[in-house]
Amino acid sequence: MIHVMASSVLPASVSSVWGLIRDFGALGKWLPGVKTCVIEGDEPGDRVGAVRRLEMGDVGVIREQLLALSDVDHTVMFSIIESALPISNYRSTISLLPITDGDRTFIQWRGQFEAPLKHAVSMEARMPTDIYQPAFDRLTDILASQEMPS
Amino acid sequence: MIHVMASSVLPASVSSVWGLIRDFGALGKWLPGVKTCVIEGDEPGDRVGAVRRLEMGDVGVIREQLLALSDVDHTVMFSIIESALPISNYRSTISLLPITDGDRTFIQWRGQFEAPLKHAVSMEARMPTDIYQPAFDRLTDILASQEMPS
Amino acid sequence: MIHVMASSVLPASVSSVWGLIRDFGALGKWLPGVKTCVIEGDEPGDRVGAVRRLEMGDVGVIREQLLALSDVDHTVMFSIIESALPISNYRSTISLLPITDGDRTFIQWRGQFEAPLKHAVSMEARMPTDIYQPAFDRLTDILASQEMPS
Amino acid sequence: MIHVMASSVLPASVSSVWGLIRDFGALGKWLPGVKTCVIEGDEPGDRVGAVRRLEMGDVGVIREQLLALSDVDHTVMFSIIESALPISNYRSTISLLPITDGDRTFIQWRGQFEAPLKHAVSMEARMPTDIYQPAFDRLTDILASQEMPS
Repeated sequence: MIHVMASSVLPASVSSVWGLIRDFGALGKWLPGVKTCVIEGDEPGDRVGAVRRLEMGDVGVIREQLLALSDVDHTVMFSIIESALPISNYRSTISLLPITDGDRTFIQWRGQFEAPLKHAVSMEARMPTDIYQPAFDRLTDILASQEMPS
Repeated sequence: MIHVMASSVLPASVSSVWGLIRDFGALGKWLPGVKTCVIEGDEPGDRVGAVRRLEMGDVGVIREQLLALSDVDHTVMFSIIESALPISNYRSTISLLPITDGDRTFIQWRGQFEAPLKHAVSMEARMPTDIYQPAFDRLTDILASQEMPS
Repeated sequence: MIHVMASSVLPASVSSVWGLIRDFGALGKWLPGVKTCVIEGDEPGDRVGAVRRLEMGDVGVIREQLLALSDVDHTVMFSIIESALPISNYRSTISLLPITDGDRTFIQWRGQFEAPLKHAVSMEARMPTDIYQPAFDRLTDILASQEMPS
Repeated sequence: MIHVMASSVLPASVSSVWGLIRDFGALGKWLPGVKTCVIEGDEPGDRVGAVRRLEMGDVGVIREQLLALSDVDHTVMFSIIESALPISNYRSTISLLPITDGDRTFIQWRGQFEAPLKHAVSMEARMPTDIYQPAFDRLTDILASQEMPS
């Protein structure tokens, strides 16, 4: 099992960030590279067990299942159940913690997966750099624009 | 804030126990004293945010909201949003852990709440003794009967 | 039980911050208001169970006991076992998490305690504002000066 | 990284079990197969960072380092820093939780490590079966004899 992690500081309160992250079907709003994202079977995006179908610009279709959701700990966990990526048993956790010093949010995104030897090093580097950190950057942009006075 | 806890060992695997606990709308099957239990608005019982309406034999109507559900940690959290009980800010967590030595399950039920001074001691004693432990006993009976050969 | 929390972002890696926080006897280096701090009995500052004796500028002597220390989670827990403060059953947890986006550290300081009604509101406000946040400010100053080129 | 786990129920209170588990230098009392166990440098067995040197009946010398100790969560974490075992980056966590129903204790022992392909399956099976569970059995015997009337 390979473990990866990226973390950052977002310029808004936990409740603002959670408003973006919580809906499992709204990934397309804040993850770069998502062309379409729908919850299968027209389920609500906060039903544990729900499956979302992503069409990515680069790697095609990915289907992911919501494993856990906590409005207390501001945490969401999900697995990849189908993709063309050279990984298996992928599970991911995004969690938020309040930063009282400045009304900001600490965000941590962890992943774990298995990969064939020839892909292991590349996937271990790619996840935090090409997926998690760009999502933080996009979230920062969205939150900054929400804070702007009209 | 008052903190209470009860814990026990159930005679079945985590997946069997989780099959009973997971559905927020199915409390009536394993909590003694529940006359009726329905999820409001006809929502699925695993949608975080769902509200269940309990009619209890002794204390009347209790409305509870699902705050977190994890198929990974086998944990469910919920709050009481309406009741005639002399408590406020009640939040509760039930979690399961596998016991590999004998294919059993460790179950822990924690609660936290505030209460007026004159009710605090009585409610602190009552929660684990009159609510949590009887639920463990009922779960044990149900699981034991499921295991019985036909 | 009253629960308080403060959190911030420190301008250095977890290992740098942990180097300051880890030694239970070195509180005087980074908590403002500490006149002297010694571990009783000449014990090492990373022995769980060790007791430190603080002489504070404002509230006199406080004796605290180390309850838990983790070099994995970068967490320290301790209790107050003697003080003139109008609180009881005080327990405190400081924990660090890495911020990969910029090699910084998320620091969280939580406390829980009981207090007589007439002191409860004041102590609840005072802990994070007058103790925890000033410690973060001091740590920031120390870490910034450590980073400075000579 | 390979992850293993074993768990059981011990016939005594958490404080009784913790009295046996807490001292990092006392492993020889409850882990079968330990011929000698000493803390290097004559350090106390509850100093985080302490190193114990085990002489095992089968696999020779193992040196382990205490990484975390919590008197609150009744948890101990340690790593293997030297051994003849075909594993690397071994880290282990033992934790206790109270079972209020009958004054017993839930014990969980988790391990994670890396191993060359030809040893991975065997070591994954061996840890919980040949190390962790026999320790639970020995602890049960010790605790049962402590409870016996004289």
